[in-house]
Amino acid sequence: MNAPARFFSTLEPLRYVGRDSRDPFGFRWYDRDQIVLGKRMEDHLRFAVAYWHSFTWPGGDPFGGETFLRPWMHGSDEMDLARAKADVAFDMFRILDVPYFCFHDRDIAPEGKTLKESNANVRAIADIFAKKMESSKVKLLWGTANLFSHRRFMSGASTNPDPDVFAYSASQVKNVMEITHELGGENYVLWGGREGYETLLNTDLKRELDQMGRFLNLVVEHKYKIGFKGTILIEPKPQEPTKHQYDFDVSTVYGLLCRAGLEKEVKVNVEANHATLAGHSFEHEIAMAAALGIFGSIDMNKGDAQSGWDTDQFPTNVEDTALAMYEILRAGGYTTGGTNFDAKIRRQSIDPEDLILAHVAAMDVCAHALLVAADMLKDGALQQAVDDRYAGWNEPQNKAMLQPGTTLASIAARAEAENLDPQPRSGRQERLEALVGSYFR
Amino acid sequence: MNAPARFFSTLEPLRYVGRDSRDPFGFRWYDRDQIVLGKRMEDHLRFAVAYWHSFTWPGGDPFGGETFLRPWMHGSDEMDLARAKADVAFDMFRILDVPYFCFHDRDIAPEGKTLKESNANVRAIADIFAKKMESSKVKLLWGTANLFSHRRFMSGASTNPDPDVFAYSASQVKNVMEITHELGGENYVLWGGREGYETLLNTDLKRELDQMGRFLNLVVEHKYKIGFKGTILIEPKPQEPTKHQYDFDVSTVYGLLCRAGLEKEVKVNVEANHATLAGHSFEHEIAMAAALGIFGSIDMNKGDAQSGWDTDQFPTNVEDTALAMYEILRAGGYTTGGTNFDAKIRRQSIDPEDLILAHVAAMDVCAHALLVAADMLKDGALQQAVDDRYAGWNEPQNKAMLQPGTTLASIAARAEAENLDPQPRSGRQERLEALVGSYFR
Amino acid sequence: MNAPARFFSTLEPLRYVGRDSRDPFGFRWYDRDQIVLGKRMEDHLRFAVAYWHSFTWPGGDPFGGETFLRPWMHGSDEMDLARAKADVAFDMFRILDVPYFCFHDRDIAPEGKTLKESNANVRAIADIFAKKMESSKVKLLWGTANLFSHRRFMSGASTNPDPDVFAYSASQVKNVMEITHELGGENYVLWGGREGYETLLNTDLKRELDQMGRFLNLVVEHKYKIGFKGTILIEPKPQEPTKHQYDFDVSTVYGLLCRAGLEKEVKVNVEANHATLAGHSFEHEIAMAAALGIFGSIDMNKGDAQSGWDTDQFPTNVEDTALAMYEILRAGGYTTGGTNFDAKIRRQSIDPEDLILAHVAAMDVCAHALLVAADMLKDGALQQAVDDRYAGWNEPQNKAMLQPGTTLASIAARAEAENLDPQPRSGRQERLEALVGSYFR
Amino acid sequence: MNAPARFFSTLEPLRYVGRDSRDPFGFRWYDRDQIVLGKRMEDHLRFAVAYWHSFTWPGGDPFGGETFLRPWMHGSDEMDLARAKADVAFDMFRILDVPYFCFHDRDIAPEGKTLKESNANVRAIADIFAKKMESSKVKLLWGTANLFSHRRFMSGASTNPDPDVFAYSASQVKNVMEITHELGGENYVLWGGREGYETLLNTDLKRELDQMGRFLNLVVEHKYKIGFKGTILIEPKPQEPTKHQYDFDVSTVYGLLCRAGLEKEVKVNVEANHATLAGHSFEHEIAMAAALGIFGSIDMNKGDAQSGWDTDQFPTNVEDTALAMYEILRAGGYTTGGTNFDAKIRRQSIDPEDLILAHVAAMDVCAHALLVAADMLKDGALQQAVDDRYAGWNEPQNKAMLQPGTTLASIAARAEAENLDPQPRSGRQERLEALVGSYFR
Ligand SMILES: [Co+2]
Ligand SMILES: [Co+2]
Ligand SMILES: [Co+2]
Ligand SMILES: [Co+2]
Ligand SMILES: [Co+2]
Ligand SMILES: [Co+2]
Ligand SMILES: [Co+2]
Ligand SMILES: [Co+2]
Repeated sequence: MNAPARFFSTLEPLRYVGRDSRDPFGFRWYDRDQIVLGKRMEDHLRFAVAYWHSFTWPGGDPFGGETFLRPWMHGSDEMDLARAKADVAFDMFRILDVPYFCFHDRDIAPEGKTLKESNANVRAIADIFAKKMESSKVKLLWGTANLFSHRRFMSGASTNPDPDVFAYSASQVKNVMEITHELGGENYVLWGGREGYETLLNTDLKRELDQMGRFLNLVVEHKYKIGFKGTILIEPKPQEPTKHQYDFDVSTVYGLLCRAGLEKEVKVNVEANHATLAGHSFEHEIAMAAALGIFGSIDMNKGDAQSGWDTDQFPTNVEDTALAMYEILRAGGYTTGGTNFDAKIRRQSIDPEDLILAHVAAMDVCAHALLVAADMLKDGALQQAVDDRYAGWNEPQNKAMLQPGTTLASIAARAEAENLDPQPRSGRQERLEALVGSYFR
Repeated sequence: MNAPARFFSTLEPLRYVGRDSRDPFGFRWYDRDQIVLGKRMEDHLRFAVAYWHSFTWPGGDPFGGETFLRPWMHGSDEMDLARAKADVAFDMFRILDVPYFCFHDRDIAPEGKTLKESNANVRAIADIFAKKMESSKVKLLWGTANLFSHRRFMSGASTNPDPDVFAYSASQVKNVMEITHELGGENYVLWGGREGYETLLNTDLKRELDQMGRFLNLVVEHKYKIGFKGTILIEPKPQEPTKHQYDFDVSTVYGLLCRAGLEKEVKVNVEANHATLAGHSFEHEIAMAAALGIFGSIDMNKGDAQSGWDTDQFPTNVEDTALAMYEILRAGGYTTGGTNFDAKIRRQSIDPEDLILAHVAAMDVCAHALLVAADMLKDGALQQAVDDRYAGWNEPQNKAMLQPGTTLASIAARAEAENLDPQPRSGRQERLEALVGSYFR
Repeated sequence: MNAPARFFSTLEPLRYVGRDSRDPFGFRWYDRDQIVLGKRMEDHLRFAVAYWHSFTWPGGDPFGGETFLRPWMHGSDEMDLARAKADVAFDMFRILDVPYFCFHDRDIAPEGKTLKESNANVRAIADIFAKKMESSKVKLLWGTANLFSHRRFMSGASTNPDPDVFAYSASQVKNVMEITHELGGENYVLWGGREGYETLLNTDLKRELDQMGRFLNLVVEHKYKIGFKGTILIEPKPQEPTKHQYDFDVSTVYGLLCRAGLEKEVKVNVEANHATLAGHSFEHEIAMAAALGIFGSIDMNKGDAQSGWDTDQFPTNVEDTALAMYEILRAGGYTTGGTNFDAKIRRQSIDPEDLILAHVAAMDVCAHALLVAADMLKDGALQQAVDDRYAGWNEPQNKAMLQPGTTLASIAARAEAENLDPQPRSGRQERLEALVGSYFR
Repeated sequence: MNAPARFFSTLEPLRYVGRDSRDPFGFRWYDRDQIVLGKRMEDHLRFAVAYWHSFTWPGGDPFGGETFLRPWMHGSDEMDLARAKADVAFDMFRILDVPYFCFHDRDIAPEGKTLKESNANVRAIADIFAKKMESSKVKLLWGTANLFSHRRFMSGASTNPDPDVFAYSASQVKNVMEITHELGGENYVLWGGREGYETLLNTDLKRELDQMGRFLNLVVEHKYKIGFKGTILIEPKPQEPTKHQYDFDVSTVYGLLCRAGLEKEVKVNVEANHATLAGHSFEHEIAMAAALGIFGSIDMNKGDAQSGWDTDQFPTNVEDTALAMYEILRAGGYTTGGTNFDAKIRRQSIDPEDLILAHVAAMDVCAHALLVAADMLKDGALQQAVDDRYAGWNEPQNKAMLQPGTTLASIAARAEAENLDPQPRSGRQERLEALVGSYFR
């Protein structure tokens, strides 16, 4: 294996070069210290690199194998390879100068011969992380447990028909939660890749929902027990790998949380591509999470509009991204959350540079989008249009309809008595779309 | 106008003719009095004809106008036409010998010059219905208010930015609820065709969800006030006519109900085509509603697997329908609910006979599916396979994991101590699918 | 009816105001006389307004009726209304100062009592158009016959099982072709809204394809007979209103043309929303048409990424539009084609201003996109990357493989002899996407 | 490695047991020697097992690894493993008693160190096949080359920007074509898994279409050169693994063939799941291929109606399958084609029995569907309905419209002169669907 720190030819941390530069290895929009709405751009965006797509995916797809041939994926001592991978990863964090990263336990350390050994492997690499984090400024946005890749999870983790898998998952989650806590992670994420079904014919839906609710409660209790101050996040996804996933979308997760009594305890990590797979726009899912009081963090990526699976591509469209950023700003911005690039380069992008340049371009898309969204917010014309549209609800008799005391009968009586004949007013969609367009200059 | 009772050439009520008959005007599978799982087939299926598709849709689509040229749609006195329509409708109920029908207020009576007059028109036709129902055995499965066709509802009913539309809707709902109650209706349905948005840019999501939750509460309170013993049902649909509808699917409705404190008060009317548009199977939505304790009734139809809109076709596939029927039987069958044909003939099916034959064929598909589903249930092999799969959860230490007292830490400790290494077991999907196939004989 | 020319409050033709203006009634990007790649912007874009969406659609959808209440849609004398509509339409052309418009026969004139009278009605209004066109600079991009709205076409036009509908369609097409020719139209379009099927069960696919091929040949022959120099265009669409439309997408149309021997005679009018409904991107369909030598013109609009039907929205996304514009420029730009806004305002956009502002915003999106696309082309970096990627094919032995003389055996023999072991090279997708992003400044 | 012939517990060839049997290891519908429309059922259906899904897929998906742990996938000598796999495969052919199998070169033999060695490996295993085929009755339906799994094909095979990959592919195809010929294969298939693009930005569409057309011509010429009498087949698929695949659907392939001058030389292998992914029904694609004169063979499977990727599931729905079988029978049945199960068991179906039972159930679905389809054909009522619908076209003046001599003008003149006013007739869709349903007894 070649010295992994040399994996990337570009050794200096990348800088802001301004929008007229044509240097692909510089940021044209992402200027960390630029003040936007009273806050540094870096503190708004809170970028995170995802360990899995960038360092553990070999470039395979359902019809073909490895294309990347990463040096840290070929060798005999798996812990050695894991350490080499960590070197490359932290080298990339340094080059990109991102404030955060995220990981699954199985991304960073190999499965051991036993559960105990597997957990110990994760802890061993986490210790290396701790040292690397001391000497760099990168922080942990969130950790999570991979409860979907190994065949033991093929029928689910907490929702598995086999209770031993539930217990096994508990052990893995406890381990990563505690490591996340120790590394100063700001959130802990649960993604239920296999918490769903392939066929209803072999599935006891109610039982599985109960198991899942119970597991969530165990996790929340453990959070308090260990004093973890971060946020517990669920990442909704409608399907894939399963035919149906129980955390289908933000609204479904809200219902699951209510059912488990956890709607005040757990929030959501909204992924762009999962939003679109669920039949929503990304901004919809963020806005819905905010309206339901459960917005936490995002996985920034995009899907392919013509492909029916989770392509997890780097975002490229500033206009689409600006609408998402606007909803985040309207929701007050992130608290513990951040912008995690749950995005993978295409399997034909086999050069080390591709990995760097994909992140640079995506960070620029987000930075540009943030500036547009900030202008939208500052200008206030959009919000004003919304407020005007609902202004009638500020009148006392109309407010009263939403309060106890009025009844269907009393409202109906007034409607008939006053011979109400409400006249529609233009929804002005095209004007508002043009208004949004006007912030792109 | 020609005498509408003569609209259908087939004047005698249609009979069961047996599966070897080739008479399209007889039932090959639907044998009302056949006992299935201890109950008459008619009492299992509780078929209802939908007034709207069968009697108020002229055959138009977004690219073309009327094709049907129904006599009751052409004339100058709208109340006369409404009465003529009622004659034809009840004549079809008699010919099909269905136990139920369903309607929207605007299906049965024309809009008046004022809200009061509109409501009075509905009541006037309802009085005619009451008489017709006395002299026939047809009953009302449910009534509902049309809060989507008129331009006043273009931006929503209860979720309208204009509070007068909220009040207007309240009046209309109160009227139909009371009429439904008086006609002995067994349910009252809310379908939120316009309760959603076209663009987030002009929408205050939280405010609209609050308005909708409040409206639901007003409806439930009114139910108790008037002593209506039926069920309040919401019919989920993901979109169309709006880009996003707030009652997206069963799981979303469950969340909305929790948010409004109504998860014990309101149930769902699951439509097959709405299930598929939301990215689910019909049986999924029924099973999910049952698991969440909110299953009420169904709108039986099917979508076109290659079309992205609500085609509302009559069901034709016994195998698909049997999976839905099996979930209904597993959920204990209908209480106040039923099998409403929210289905329309294709716009090229312009002969009166097409309307009759479409219902006959669909009733046969459901009856055949019921027989298969009943065999699946009686035989028990499917249920046994599911029970076996989860059998491990019956052991005390596993049951305990789902109960208070255990913690993530205690479960994790046991998993490590016992060195758990759960081995996957076959999900047997193909075997179970073959088993399902074996009930078709 | 109020004087229709007063329908729009904005009476002066709209001007370029520059991108820092906030005036919604001015163009921020569309500067007609700006020279782009050696040509006036107006001559690049060749904008056309579509008569149908803007002036004949009342705002209905499958779940609700008219919302717009246009004065020219309410009155007793249909020809009077048609003349009033023409006044409003040409007033809008004047205000927008667009160079082109497009129409269907039935958009501009009402159906008469007979086929002859219907055709005469169209001619009568066309005569008015001819005068209006003399005194304004607006020209006709294309005309077409509406062979889908009336119930006689419910089972198709040229593909109808009833040969009389084939003949009826021939008469309508002949009339509009000749009128298009006389008005100086630059293309004639065929859109086969009903040329498809609802169910294979009642369809003779081969026979219908033959009928369609024959009809196309009749049209092309007539073009030569009357000396029409414009282009005959087919507008592909996969479905809707039918379940399957025979002109599914560009590639399918190419096959149909080959089958009819017309691949050198007929081109395509590519619509953005039809591209996406067919599972393609807009730029794909344009690029494919260019590759197949049949690119003609475009219907500019966009679909809703989450809706499964033809929403025909005004374009709002510059980045998406720029990719389409780039393919048009790469194909050499339009010859007889143009940018027709086959787009309709949302049914809640009921103010006259909405219609104007939607066009203004869309024209700006296209103008901005053109500038970006022109930069992409001028800079040449994208094209260079493509050329580099295929550079190996310029070597003689590789060129030879594509020429007669080489055989599978000879190529195979060389591959083995030279022990070929081709090494993959990065596809550089993210780098190229970032490069595209760099042209947005 | 355990003796692979013992892999399946069921050692005796499976027999027809009749539809009242509950034995899952017997055929309830597939009765090889039953005469259907004058031909043995086996000769109608011509079942083939696919080597790849059954014997080379380890059960992985994009989110998880191997689940099956097949003994022939774990070992050090790859040729030994390939021989062991062949033993298991032919043992399964024996147990299922299927007449055919299909394979890719890379399914049956491992990649060697050089192209020559790779080809030699395939030939070595093919020699083993030849012996096994002598002592059993199983035949080869078709062979094909895997030009998509290895990273060298990541950017295409014949459409690769690197001409060496074109040459490499030629060598591989030549080898498998000749082996297919020697083994008595009845067809040779080309599936262009990577013949498409991930992004237009790096793609020269016209050049790639030209390369593909040239490659097809080389293949057809080689067919004649070696005297292969079988059929060359292309298997359309819209996308996956690529974003866009050039052989999108049957109609697209027809256009490609015309462009290459091969529409009389090459036919299509239609896969059910590829049809649905392309936005069509399976029966549509078969019927379209028949109408275009290019129907060859089928890959029988089904997709999941709610999943957007190629799930390749075993067929389970007799009604859907019967519609496909009906189109095959209408097209005259197979000549060199057959019913290849391009289907894989779910990754949770890890027992050897699952593989057997999935095939048994699928063969029964097809056999049942064939019986229904044969009844549909024999009865003739469906065909009669279609013929009646188009009967008007048999009249001389109507036939004449489709012949040279008539012109648009002459037809139009007659339409006006005769004052044609065609009246629509019912499309009778629901009646025909009910008629189809009546053949299920
Ligand atoms: Co994610
Ligand atoms: Co994802
Ligand atoms: Co419904
Ligand atoms: Co519906
Ligand atoms: Co169009
Ligand atoms: Co369109
Ligand atoms: Co296949
Ligand atoms: Co497939």
